[in-house]
Amino acid sequence: MKKIIQPEFLIDKEKVLSNIKMMKNKTDKSRIVFRPHFKTHQSREIGRWFRELEVDRITVSSLRMAEYFADDEWKDITVAFPVNVLEIERINRLAEKITLNLLVESEETIDILSKKLANPVQAFIKIDVGGNRTGINSKNIEKIQSVYEKISRAKKINPAGLLTHAGNTYHAKSKKEIREIFYKSVEELNSIRAVIDSSCKISIGDTPACSLITKFENIDEIRPGNFVFYDYMQYKLGSSKLNQIAAIMILPVVAKHDERNEVVVYGGAVHLSKESIWENGKNIFGKVVRLTKSGWDDKVNYGYVKSVSQEHGIIKFPHDEFKKVKIGSLLGVIPIHSCLTANLMRKYITSAGEQIFSMNASE
Amino acid sequence: MKKIIQPEFLIDKEKVLSNIKMMKNKTDKSRIVFRPHFKTHQSREIGRWFRELEVDRITVSSLRMAEYFADDEWKDITVAFPVNVLEIERINRLAEKITLNLLVESEETIDILSKKLANPVQAFIKIDVGGNRTGINSKNIEKIQSVYEKISRAKKINPAGLLTHAGNTYHAKSKKEIREIFYKSVEELNSIRAVIDSSCKISIGDTPACSLITKFENIDEIRPGNFVFYDYMQYKLGSSKLNQIAAIMILPVVAKHDERNEVVVYGGAVHLSKESIWENGKNIFGKVVRLTKSGWDDKVNYGYVKSVSQEHGIIKFPHDEFKKVKIGSLLGVIPIHSCLTANLMRKYITSAGEQIFSMNASE
Repeated sequence: MKKIIQPEFLIDKEKVLSNIKMMKNKTDKSRIVFRPHFKTHQSREIGRWFRELEVDRITVSSLRMAEYFADDEWKDITVAFPVNVLEIERINRLAEKITLNLLVESEETIDILSKKLANPVQAFIKIDVGGNRTGINSKNIEKIQSVYEKISRAKKINPAGLLTHAGNTYHAKSKKEIREIFYKSVEELNSIRAVIDSSCKISIGDTPACSLITKFENIDEIRPGNFVFYDYMQYKLGSSKLNQIAAIMILPVVAKHDERNEVVVYGGAVHLSKESIWENGKNIFGKVVRLTKSGWDDKVNYGYVKSVSQEHGIIKFPHDEFKKVKIGSLLGVIPIHSCLTANLMRKYITSAGEQIFSMNASE
Repeated sequence: MKKIIQPEFLIDKEKVLSNIKMMKNKTDKSRIVFRPHFKTHQSREIGRWFRELEVDRITVSSLRMAEYFADDEWKDITVAFPVNVLEIERINRLAEKITLNLLVESEETIDILSKKLANPVQAFIKIDVGGNRTGINSKNIEKIQSVYEKISRAKKINPAGLLTHAGNTYHAKSKKEIREIFYKSVEELNSIRAVIDSSCKISIGDTPACSLITKFENIDEIRPGNFVFYDYMQYKLGSSKLNQIAAIMILPVVAKHDERNEVVVYGGAVHLSKESIWENGKNIFGKVVRLTKSGWDDKVNYGYVKSVSQEHGIIKFPHDEFKKVKIGSLLGVIPIHSCLTANLMRKYITSAGEQIFSMNASE
């Protein structure tokens, strides 16, 4: 591994490949499309790892990200975000060279698009199955139907099907509840399909459910993203094991506070993000792991990130662990939410010593 | 203003200049050094606006940021973060060409530095006056004294004085309490100075106190950073007026939810950050302002950002305001914490139509 002197996002490539294979095998067995969400890593290099495992359709979270990956030969991309009509020029450029799948949820958007589209696009209707973020409420069959009909009539917009992100799995209290949310969502989407068009595709995607379901039935594709790295939030939800977590932060120790068993690391909100999770009566911002020669071990009983400010992280240790830490030591920290941490870090390193750039890295 | 189609960080340059002048005038009148913290904007271009107003000493939060500004002719830089000894090569390169002021708080760090320094540096002792983040506790005079003596004896390390960030002002309940925290910190630092060395400088810095104190006495310099833009957190603390807030986010509307008066904008945690503030019984992630021809107006009774996920922001409106919003509209949002938002956005625009790059922007 290269000499680390500042905060780094460290990826264990073997674990990443194993996470991709696990998800790919499940979709192959279930004979559905695996369309991974690339917003987690935002990197062409990591995208190629997927391509080598025969993935050829992807999901992204912005048109800008779609352009970034289209320029690396991805030919079938879903932008899983309500389409931003202000970016019509990007849409037209993209739809000229790739199969571009967009999300719509209102007649207003379809009207604007159909006036301005230069090339055909596919449109999924975004359905809200209980996440309450966006999409048409799954109970509102009438609206879904009228939006679907409007798409079918619109020039240059082909109906692609129904799409949901069951984000409510992130609030589940158990693995059982995650599975129940998934089955209920699938059932609701199938009821809608039965009413509007039986040939309609169903796309569903969230890492917790996609990780816990072994066989996918009555759906056409999944779009998990976070599973590529996983993180402490997924571990706490039960969607991943500790040894599936494929990325950590490496942070240098810059100060020690004996009287409170706390260490200050170079690594704060601009590295880890301000995402936190509730554990043992407090919000924590990361979990310490022990670094090994080739990566890190899979135990998390060493310490935790108690708070973050812009560049500072405060790590609380049990006294015995605290004593071992020195100024200039490097600590490994599992992020709470790897998507936000990767987005902030922009450049990654692998345990094999490679450097990896994401969309926003200035090389 | 250029045509905006995606999330943008909009700066009102006139307000920025006025904020800088306000702080510069106060320090001139108090005959102390104004050493603004550049971690908020992280931009050489904005740095030059300070230089034109005769600021020639600055603060940064990392050695990497010190390099970035040193390459733009800044000759006297304080890295207001416990020195990361792993970056000794950067320190040596920097100290060769500029006056480099570092922060130390332990004998361990001084030992490492004094072995490896190639060129002289200035060292401030970081004092904790109650923020409880890092620094030697202000009550621990014995430790402060022994660290000070060690610095004085060390080769290539010159004692620069005592430095604190009274971060506890961010938890103050009133302007009066912010001022009290400031005066108490100054008093404590002066007691320490009286014991260890009367020629020692005192550096203090946090935007709330530096904004509210009119005349600075018994200190040698201030290092506020956030005041350059201010934000909703500073407004709520009482450190700024609404019309001093000099930067907002512009976010496109991508979906509307009639049944709950909510709008989905393209603008989430990777734009605004996950920083929130408690207001009227809930956590909010930004506050809507109305856009005008030349910027935005100074009222905040329109709506607020209720939640953010990676790219989505959910904005809650009063019903009358909700009705006016259309798909494809642009909304202005005051960030909760402008430092984190600017860090995420990396490129800014000004109401005069300029584009501005920060340290992390890939041009």
